[in-house]
Amino acid sequence: MTTSNWLLPEHLSDILPAEARRIEELRRKLLDLYRTFGFEMVAPPLIEYTDSLLAAKGLDLQLRTCKLVDQLSGRTMGLRADMTPQVTRIDAHLLNREGVTRLCYCGSVIHARPSGLLSDRELLQIGAEIYGHAGFEADLQIIQLALDSLEMAGVQKPRIDLNHPNVSRVLVDSVPSLSERAGEIFSLLNDKDVPSLKELLEGCQDVPQDIANALILLPSLYGSVNVLDEAQESLPDLPGISQALQSLRELVGALDNACVGIDLADVRGYDYHSGVSFAIFAPGWHDAIVRGGRYDNVGKVFGRARPATGFSLDLRKVSAGLSPAQPSRAIKAPWGLDVDLVERIRELRNQGHVVVQIFPNSTQSVDEFIFESELVYSEGDWILESIQ
Amino acid sequence: MTTSNWLLPEHLSDILPAEARRIEELRRKLLDLYRTFGFEMVAPPLIEYTDSLLAAKGLDLQLRTCKLVDQLSGRTMGLRADMTPQVTRIDAHLLNREGVTRLCYCGSVIHARPSGLLSDRELLQIGAEIYGHAGFEADLQIIQLALDSLEMAGVQKPRIDLNHPNVSRVLVDSVPSLSERAGEIFSLLNDKDVPSLKELLEGCQDVPQDIANALILLPSLYGSVNVLDEAQESLPDLPGISQALQSLRELVGALDNACVGIDLADVRGYDYHSGVSFAIFAPGWHDAIVRGGRYDNVGKVFGRARPATGFSLDLRKVSAGLSPAQPSRAIKAPWGLDVDLVERIRELRNQGHVVVQIFPNSTQSVDEFIFESELVYSEGDWILESIQ
Repeated sequence: MTTSNWLLPEHLSDILPAEARRIEELRRKLLDLYRTFGFEMVAPPLIEYTDSLLAAKGLDLQLRTCKLVDQLSGRTMGLRADMTPQVTRIDAHLLNREGVTRLCYCGSVIHARPSGLLSDRELLQIGAEIYGHAGFEADLQIIQLALDSLEMAGVQKPRIDLNHPNVSRVLVDSVPSLSERAGEIFSLLNDKDVPSLKELLEGCQDVPQDIANALILLPSLYGSVNVLDEAQESLPDLPGISQALQSLRELVGALDNACVGIDLADVRGYDYHSGVSFAIFAPGWHDAIVRGGRYDNVGKVFGRARPATGFSLDLRKVSAGLSPAQPSRAIKAPWGLDVDLVERIRELRNQGHVVVQIFPNSTQSVDEFIFESELVYSEGDWILESIQ
Repeated sequence: MTTSNWLLPEHLSDILPAEARRIEELRRKLLDLYRTFGFEMVAPPLIEYTDSLLAAKGLDLQLRTCKLVDQLSGRTMGLRADMTPQVTRIDAHLLNREGVTRLCYCGSVIHARPSGLLSDRELLQIGAEIYGHAGFEADLQIIQLALDSLEMAGVQKPRIDLNHPNVSRVLVDSVPSLSERAGEIFSLLNDKDVPSLKELLEGCQDVPQDIANALILLPSLYGSVNVLDEAQESLPDLPGISQALQSLRELVGALDNACVGIDLADVRGYDYHSGVSFAIFAPGWHDAIVRGGRYDNVGKVFGRARPATGFSLDLRKVSAGLSPAQPSRAIKAPWGLDVDLVERIRELRNQGHVVVQIFPNSTQSVDEFIFESELVYSEGDWILESIQ
């Protein structure tokens, strides 16, 4: 045992009082918001077999998931790095309903490695998912709820970027030599790395000029919703593409478009999303705060394909980007078993006041609270006296 | 991948809607209760180095903790099996306050193996700890709060058993040949296995008759508070023992004693507790629902010894023993972008109503909610109509 056994591993941290309380309040507000929309809460386990945890997603999740051996079965379990596949499993198998099902959840997830230099490895993931409805109404409700969540959390000036993975997918899949290198191409698109993309395209055989031009154009197809018109004009007229653009147009029309933009090159989750996907950004956060979108048929690996769309966010990350959490007010009271004192304190606590009793011969330390008044005995009664 | 990849490992489970919501509500009620007493919330990480996680407790915790390798440092990390050592680390090192500090927490913990045939391996541990006060006032506040927690959760007829580990410890430590086999003796005491205890004592050298008699008597020293008188009379008059009995007497005097009992043979946590400890039982739960007690100086391993006392309970276990969680009421509403409809729904949701919009050409499934009314358009207005 070293003398520094209080040191935490990198990219993991303790959350201290004022911040912990704010995160708890955000959690409550958002879960209550989802509840008023009819989202039912579920709580999948923190660990389960990797066969289940990783069934629904790709290599990325595989690498992000910590593994451990189940002492009861000898099989490999994973510490979840994402709750969405678990919720999909619950919808597919456990609830096994025919109709539309709205589910929400909130829980800790762990990433084996941080996703960026400034990222934590522990996230408090909260999210909402709609299963069983393929229409745009479900996408709209999910996007609206994601925006409402940030408003409720006090995030200023959010900007939402919409995308549809089929735009880039149809382009890539239209040429076999590109399709073979899809992973590389999507990665270059994500980085908006046009020079490397050009190089790659030159090295591929039989790429029609219009497809090559379209792929090179994609990284510049982001910005206001006018990008949709630009895309319509300049991208090849393939059925999958015009359908995707049409879906985006429909959503843009229904959303209050002040904060809505388009980013056709943001192809994260391309192997997972099947329809409109989105990311929400805001000043104060270095990366997207919310990611979401449609992922129809992912439940198939659990024996049941269903339309699905949802979003999630990390409450710890949201809280960290807000202005510092402030302490709240409390009342100082003496210790004592005097019936009147005990009764008065109980009353104040029942009214929601924080009453901190000072133990005999002790000093008191608090961070989360500021004492603004004190319970004192005066003329036969316990009264509140303000502290200057 | 098998076709049954939706199967969970044994002793792990999904929590479904009505139950998940009740657990969430219990969580809120208890955290708010602790807050009104001035307990500040902290949130330690789900995983940290085993050097820290296991520093404060013994072999038992070692065996219960799942291990994994930190991909960043190559060191061994543990998935926490108990949050108390983490909270002690936060008090000792991170907050580093001089005065009394009240901390509370709520989070998931994982046991590598279930603690019993009927136990889960995932617990939602909630608890409260007081650091920096050695007096009985802190023990009293902790016990009161533990009882208030169960009352608030709706647990009927709780029974609290008090104990002081020094009673058995002083007996065992008074004879070197017993001290060497302390672990075995405490385990037999816990099981109230008198025949095996007798056999063990006969095999030990130089055990004075009064010590042997006292150890054999211990397993029968449980029941009402009168046990304290019985213990005073029949146990050897060693200083540590009379002090321990005196501490128990003081607490019994201050507590409403209807539900208070004594169990001097319940020596779980004997290597950890340093003062009054307790367990709370109730009809409907096969094992203690709450455990707590004093554990002064455990923070020493983190470089700072402080008086400490606290308790914890598993919210999932509490909820599982209550009568089944009931669905709550909801309002059914049609889908539509009509401004009046959208506004009416927003209003209802702001008032806290659950409004589930039915998507076009879809059926709706719910478990957590029962539709008791429906928003319908009638004579130019959206009105609520009750559903029979």
